[in-house]
Amino acid sequence: MTPSHAIRHVRITPIAFRDPPLLNAAGIHEPWALRAVIEIETASGLVGINETYGDLPMLQALAKAAPALQGLSPWALNEMESRVAALVTPPVQAPSEFLTQQVSLAPGTHVSKTVAKVVSAFEVAMLDLQGQLAQAPVVDLLGGAARDRVPYSAYLFFKPAEHIDRPYAPDPWGEALTPDQLVAQAQRMIDQYGFQSIKLKAGALPPEQEAAGMLALARAFPGTPLRIDPNANWSVATSLKIVEQLHGLLEYYEDPAPGLDGMAAVARACDVPLATNMVVTDFAEFRRNTELGCPVRIVLSDHHYWGGLRATQRLSTLCRTFDLGLSMHSNSHLGISLTAMTHLCASVPQLTYACDTHYPWQDDEVVSGGRLKLEHGSLRVPTAPGLGVTLDRDALARLHDNYLRCGIRHRDDLGQMRKYDPSFTGIQPRF
Amino acid sequence: MTPSHAIRHVRITPIAFRDPPLLNAAGIHEPWALRAVIEIETASGLVGINETYGDLPMLQALAKAAPALQGLSPWALNEMESRVAALVTPPVQAPSEFLTQQVSLAPGTHVSKTVAKVVSAFEVAMLDLQGQLAQAPVVDLLGGAARDRVPYSAYLFFKPAEHIDRPYAPDPWGEALTPDQLVAQAQRMIDQYGFQSIKLKAGALPPEQEAAGMLALARAFPGTPLRIDPNANWSVATSLKIVEQLHGLLEYYEDPAPGLDGMAAVARACDVPLATNMVVTDFAEFRRNTELGCPVRIVLSDHHYWGGLRATQRLSTLCRTFDLGLSMHSNSHLGISLTAMTHLCASVPQLTYACDTHYPWQDDEVVSGGRLKLEHGSLRVPTAPGLGVTLDRDALARLHDNYLRCGIRHRDDLGQMRKYDPSFTGIQPRF
Repeated sequence: MTPSHAIRHVRITPIAFRDPPLLNAAGIHEPWALRAVIEIETASGLVGINETYGDLPMLQALAKAAPALQGLSPWALNEMESRVAALVTPPVQAPSEFLTQQVSLAPGTHVSKTVAKVVSAFEVAMLDLQGQLAQAPVVDLLGGAARDRVPYSAYLFFKPAEHIDRPYAPDPWGEALTPDQLVAQAQRMIDQYGFQSIKLKAGALPPEQEAAGMLALARAFPGTPLRIDPNANWSVATSLKIVEQLHGLLEYYEDPAPGLDGMAAVARACDVPLATNMVVTDFAEFRRNTELGCPVRIVLSDHHYWGGLRATQRLSTLCRTFDLGLSMHSNSHLGISLTAMTHLCASVPQLTYACDTHYPWQDDEVVSGGRLKLEHGSLRVPTAPGLGVTLDRDALARLHDNYLRCGIRHRDDLGQMRKYDPSFTGIQPRF
Repeated sequence: MTPSHAIRHVRITPIAFRDPPLLNAAGIHEPWALRAVIEIETASGLVGINETYGDLPMLQALAKAAPALQGLSPWALNEMESRVAALVTPPVQAPSEFLTQQVSLAPGTHVSKTVAKVVSAFEVAMLDLQGQLAQAPVVDLLGGAARDRVPYSAYLFFKPAEHIDRPYAPDPWGEALTPDQLVAQAQRMIDQYGFQSIKLKAGALPPEQEAAGMLALARAFPGTPLRIDPNANWSVATSLKIVEQLHGLLEYYEDPAPGLDGMAAVARACDVPLATNMVVTDFAEFRRNTELGCPVRIVLSDHHYWGGLRATQRLSTLCRTFDLGLSMHSNSHLGISLTAMTHLCASVPQLTYACDTHYPWQDDEVVSGGRLKLEHGSLRVPTAPGLGVTLDRDALARLHDNYLRCGIRHRDDLGQMRKYDPSFTGIQPRF
């Protein structure tokens, strides 16, 4: 490393993009989803990029940690990690009700994950720089491609036709509240992207209706692997009743009941493997799962909160050691995150399930060349140096303007849901 | 990666170098230690190097696997791993008595580790190539240095003054069979290398004599961390009796009794943390240790049989997850192995114990510039691209001639010991 490749600038740009009114256990998506775009620039003028959470506590943590990168080599990931850890603890405070909701729905927004999240945000951008320096794609820095394309699954949501606040024209997906509408949504998504497995975000409508939707999907797409994710919004009894109705249909059963103890209770009475992105969200929880005899059999990782691409690779070794499966969780995101996931998943041989992605639900993009193209539900692993995607600066400016104008600073599916149903409490399990 | 960096040649050169008559649980070192030097050359003429085991089964496995590298990118570690796994299973057969001995003494020579050993042998040489391509030291490819020098410990052995076969002039270390001789050995080694911790290879003399040696070391080097490694040659009762005599002296207690169950029995009655390089030697055994509530608290890794530098980094994450310590085991080796260990250990923040090394017991070298220089017991992490060491081709030729002439093709401490004591059985635990 010549000194001229030392890191000189870090830029953090919050952005917002349109997000449809997707229903989930915690409420409903707001009209704008937040992300942050990271740019790390070397003295020599190279720029490494990344995409991460864009809520206010995360932006504050990123700002607090950014000075740690000053003067660092893009290779110095261990040093970055220890500097970040020293700077961003203790965690930023946030209102407790907000926290309770977000822990259960999206561990990525929980403050206990702040160090891992900031480390991940910087790590991917530094890997992008490393790849540019080494003239190698990020996947090569991670051990090379075990596959040349990474499969994703069709991620279905129940939803009304449009946002209650009507901030912009309705999305093209239309209403999905009945089994027929759900099948139509799946068909549209599969026609457009070629997905070869289907996941339904559940925990939003009464469980019997959601089960009817799954049965309709099984009839319409025979042989296609199916998954359902009630986001811990079902009691153990409901979880067991519904899995009985879906007998023989599920590839895995994602987070039916709350807590590792709830999951363990379901596991004792159910032969479908349980998956989670809610109760095994860090290495300490991984250990607790093993101590309970591994009621959770498949970990849905997310490099954004597990501490980065290399941390997720290490998680894959823990999973293999304890005979657990591994796949990937997703939040609303754009193409940088999708590309980082693709490099990562290509580098993990035992990642044998199609990964989750919200990508079809977004219609905007921040990378040059616009929306990434999935073929047969898969994204080809880029072979250009680094991540292999660069920023479209006009798009970045536009999405940043969205952020400034939209007024959203925390993800708040619960508050948004109360606009539709003032009596909605978000207390889980609801069913 | 331009195609010209594809791998074109693999050369495997068995070497032998002088090794003193070091006593251990399985017998005594033969006059020559075997290693193999790996060279991987790209079409563009770059050469990546490494050092590994040189016994015949290993050489056969390396030869069988070498064609897998043909045409591969030096970045394609995952692909290399799957090709090697496909080529080198099922394991090469070896005489069963030989196996039994070697499993207990040195897991690195056990055939069950063949895939991991071959993968490691190639991985390090490919990382050396990657570093040359990226113009970065190997430690940077592993996440960057968490420390700029890696500490090693003084590794003491009981020994006669010279080999029974008198193949060459006696080594300068002299006899070490009494506490006073042991203290003199330690003093000489510390004067020469600056080590700041001491490990005694035990399990060779009657336990009371070895304990007396430890007590003499504690008196002679107050405050210096001490470890003892009877290599599973003590019963549980003996293990407990001796640790009682060494109360308050030990940093950790390495492999006193045989088997994970034996170690668990010791752990239940002893408050010194147990370390191992014998019962947690792969990820499956790591899991078994956790299932028993982690009687072993410190894993002594060895990248040569754990599957490489990256596998050992992953092991470090497992250790952190289960609150275990981590340090490194060693066999007789030269400077390439020491350099690879140094890059690895520099990249693992939680590696907080000084590592084992046999390096002081060798007087030869295969790297350019001759013997590596330890300062205050530590080796500075190289900053040149790749491993930062290159082959001395004259030395390589000479050491290969040693190999051809010495006649040793398997490590056989037991057979060698029978020359001294025909009644020696090697059955463990002996005491």
